[in-house]
Amino acid sequence: MKHIVVGGVAAGMSAAARLRRLDEHCQILVLERGEYVSYANCGLPYYVGDVITKRDALLLQTPASFKKRFNVEVRINSEVTSADPEAKSVRIRDTKTGKVYEEGFDKLLLAPGGSPVKPAIPGSDHPAIHTLWTIPDTDSLRTLVDGGAIRSALVVGAGFIGLEMAENLHARGIHVTVVEMADQALSVIDYEMAAIVHNELRMKGIELRLKDGITSFTNSENGGVTAQLTSGSSLAADLVLLSIGVKPNTEFLQDSGIALGRRGHILVDDHLLTSRADIFAAGDAIEVLNPLTAKQTAIPLAGPANKQGRIAADNMHGETMRSYNGTMGTAIAKVCDLDVGVTGLTEKLCRAEGIPCGSVVLHPIDHAGYYPGASGFTLKLVYSPETRRVLGAQGVGFGGVDKRIDVIATAIMGKMTVDDLTEIEHAYAPPYSSAKDPVNMAGFVAQNVLDGKVRSISWDQLQQGLADFYLLDVRTPGEFADGCIKGSVNIPVDNLRERVTEIPNDKPIAVICKVGIRGYITARILAAHGFNDCHNLSGGYDTWRLATAE
Amino acid sequence: MKHIVVGGVAAGMSAAARLRRLDEHCQILVLERGEYVSYANCGLPYYVGDVITKRDALLLQTPASFKKRFNVEVRINSEVTSADPEAKSVRIRDTKTGKVYEEGFDKLLLAPGGSPVKPAIPGSDHPAIHTLWTIPDTDSLRTLVDGGAIRSALVVGAGFIGLEMAENLHARGIHVTVVEMADQALSVIDYEMAAIVHNELRMKGIELRLKDGITSFTNSENGGVTAQLTSGSSLAADLVLLSIGVKPNTEFLQDSGIALGRRGHILVDDHLLTSRADIFAAGDAIEVLNPLTAKQTAIPLAGPANKQGRIAADNMHGETMRSYNGTMGTAIAKVCDLDVGVTGLTEKLCRAEGIPCGSVVLHPIDHAGYYPGASGFTLKLVYSPETRRVLGAQGVGFGGVDKRIDVIATAIMGKMTVDDLTEIEHAYAPPYSSAKDPVNMAGFVAQNVLDGKVRSISWDQLQQGLADFYLLDVRTPGEFADGCIKGSVNIPVDNLRERVTEIPNDKPIAVICKVGIRGYITARILAAHGFNDCHNLSGGYDTWRLATAE
Repeated sequence: MKHIVVGGVAAGMSAAARLRRLDEHCQILVLERGEYVSYANCGLPYYVGDVITKRDALLLQTPASFKKRFNVEVRINSEVTSADPEAKSVRIRDTKTGKVYEEGFDKLLLAPGGSPVKPAIPGSDHPAIHTLWTIPDTDSLRTLVDGGAIRSALVVGAGFIGLEMAENLHARGIHVTVVEMADQALSVIDYEMAAIVHNELRMKGIELRLKDGITSFTNSENGGVTAQLTSGSSLAADLVLLSIGVKPNTEFLQDSGIALGRRGHILVDDHLLTSRADIFAAGDAIEVLNPLTAKQTAIPLAGPANKQGRIAADNMHGETMRSYNGTMGTAIAKVCDLDVGVTGLTEKLCRAEGIPCGSVVLHPIDHAGYYPGASGFTLKLVYSPETRRVLGAQGVGFGGVDKRIDVIATAIMGKMTVDDLTEIEHAYAPPYSSAKDPVNMAGFVAQNVLDGKVRSISWDQLQQGLADFYLLDVRTPGEFADGCIKGSVNIPVDNLRERVTEIPNDKPIAVICKVGIRGYITARILAAHGFNDCHNLSGGYDTWRLATAE
Repeated sequence: MKHIVVGGVAAGMSAAARLRRLDEHCQILVLERGEYVSYANCGLPYYVGDVITKRDALLLQTPASFKKRFNVEVRINSEVTSADPEAKSVRIRDTKTGKVYEEGFDKLLLAPGGSPVKPAIPGSDHPAIHTLWTIPDTDSLRTLVDGGAIRSALVVGAGFIGLEMAENLHARGIHVTVVEMADQALSVIDYEMAAIVHNELRMKGIELRLKDGITSFTNSENGGVTAQLTSGSSLAADLVLLSIGVKPNTEFLQDSGIALGRRGHILVDDHLLTSRADIFAAGDAIEVLNPLTAKQTAIPLAGPANKQGRIAADNMHGETMRSYNGTMGTAIAKVCDLDVGVTGLTEKLCRAEGIPCGSVVLHPIDHAGYYPGASGFTLKLVYSPETRRVLGAQGVGFGGVDKRIDVIATAIMGKMTVDDLTEIEHAYAPPYSSAKDPVNMAGFVAQNVLDGKVRSISWDQLQQGLADFYLLDVRTPGEFADGCIKGSVNIPVDNLRERVTEIPNDKPIAVICKVGIRGYITARILAAHGFNDCHNLSGGYDTWRLATAE
């Protein structure tokens, strides 16, 4: 039995190692078009930023180490240029010698990965314009930055990689501007969550230009480049980093008869089998099912790639066929001092897909406030008002985000409801959490909304109907004086009972507090006093302030 | 409607606040026998240790603040001395004035909590002998420690509170000895996991005496105390801290007709209703169902107490009845630099309860090794070999434990299998995890065992049958030279294929590596070469070394 694996990074190498563990005697050949295999691609920005200081740390395996441990032949500089499912062979070009040859296979795994998209705009081949995807990319960037001549950088695209690069370039003393076509960074999260990121970037001195794009690049002084922007202005920088997306490396499959998707991704069934027998695919180059939208999508992430590689290997080995149950896009990134994480559906995606959803926004702390080092974060929970099922969550803040995203990702996988979230028995001691974990709290709040205990209004709903509401701010006078929604009236919650007669009952009331807790208490008191049209501002003034900031 | 709540800490105050939010107009009276309500009981050891520096931080609410926010009357120094379910009244003694009076109720919540057990041994009323449970306890201890006269302390009982106190006293420069009757600290985790804690305590200079108890206390010089131990030796200390367990504060219910359990805990149904109508109970004083053993137990923890309080309030309010689905004992503590967490069943508890279980032990790192600050921990997963369901997990190490325990607690609640663990789509970026999270890895390892890909042997099984095995250590010669199991033969995994003929095939083979990964690869290679009786040492030499240490 001879297995060929095309692609020697996450999915491919996971599969090759697993194949060997399943079958000591088969032949396994990995073909990698680059010079490196099994490298730490998620670590590359941090090597540019000198957070990871040793280049060796990025190289997890070599062909020699893999041969020794797994008896797998890994050929680098070996680009597969075509695949023939009938003949069961691939054509390979040695990128060093130019030699072209064929190798036959019994089973084939396609794990060619993706490449950064380059925009088709004038001047985009300028030598100061870079992408970051491979070890050679990283070496170039690091050498440039180490050289000290780079004073300014333009990052195009405010996705996860763009922001990681912005942070790492900024950490090297470079003035960084990020240009993003959308009205927010990190399109995979909702606007008011991204607003926290916008604030952090600006606080740290990273310039952020939203709703703007590049129309062309031209030469600038000292070998730099000037970007003309759709807004009409222009930006000069010593270095440009493009991070506007990833496309699958599947050109070589165009004529293979292996079915590809609309955007060139390899189509697979739930066993990761392509449209042709004995040919499997995994990693960034495939389309996957998003189990929450029930639609096909492409989610190029390392975690799913590694897991797919293992499943593909199991199915190539073929004792039993294992299913890959899809990818819902759980992701996280560090953006300066913020953790930014997401799992499942956002409110935005629900709206786009016509999926009914409710959401709550909280501002909890990661562990008991009385224990040193507690830090705040914002947690948004998205759920189905019909089934009460958890659909997604986003967290942005200074600690504890990854834990809650992982817990909620697990809950989504377990098809749990917001009621189940209230019951999760988490590990509590003051250094780790509170007696009611933020995940429990999110469940409580959603449960209260679903059970009709309180109505909640999102910052954008309130903004749209602002004039229709009596705006009741129940924070302390001091908090109120520090900033409030224009036109709001301040009655602190602790004085509400004696001052309830001051509140008119002829229009709907929007209740505003700092994070939403006092607003909820207020809404309950008002309901008992006959105010039947109260709406608690979700996430409170903390969310409002950042989400409505210019 | 008049609600009385007995007990003003976790469960009681949660319930009182929730009751008010459910019903603005009812009367709510909280009766607390102590002087403080809603205090941070889990933070008390850290205030003694000066990790929490401000006493105010421990006091989360006062009767005045609670009155203002929630219009709830909180009477401190008010001990309930009896309850009459027929008359629907409680008898109260004002502990300051001695005044005794009655209050009637429509609904009653019993949340009296627990108290530290004091051993019935001679001399245990010595003034240098303390417990830590309340604010006054804490004040006494802090004053003593601040005074500087305490040079040595004896902590009796190596449970979570005992070890937290040991750490905090040690942090104040006090020489601490912990005496524990069992053969391990932290009886709620398995021995080889506790062995890591033993090692940490000793490394930090905290003395640990296992399998030893106190027979009596006698006066010692300078107001100190001398403990006579069952082992025959004696120990002098300036301060003794007893932490040998907690008993429910239910003496006042003895003649009430409210059903109590064998050890005095209040018995409740799944609505937290006691045996008598309109009387509910919550918190440390109740018996709960452990859903994994299907047996009644008592688990005095803050998280469950808070959650029970909220559910009890919902049911006292009575729109619909909500169920409390039991407690599986998820817990965590910081022990010096270690995080020690547990959820669900341990192997030890499975054995005691006759529940079939398998387990795997891993030594992962909390995030990608190439990103700074990665730290190792040990993760033990316990599962059912019949249903493949996850039954429990334990984590001990220097970071990332709480996240994995919470994820696995959620998975247990979702009735997930080890196969499901392999698919959990966690949030990955190098600062937070690896592409395959330790939870995924635990699932992979368990899956491999259950699918017959490898047989695993635990350290204690190997120890019992040591002479029966050919001991094959597949680490590097350098690792082997640093320490190995006596009698083992060293063939590094990377040389195994060419040296496989050196291995005899006439007895079972135990394969030993550092953590278990190379051992697994070895077992697969050997199986392919006809060695059908290979056993991979679970957790590798790292687990063996600590678990078998004297």
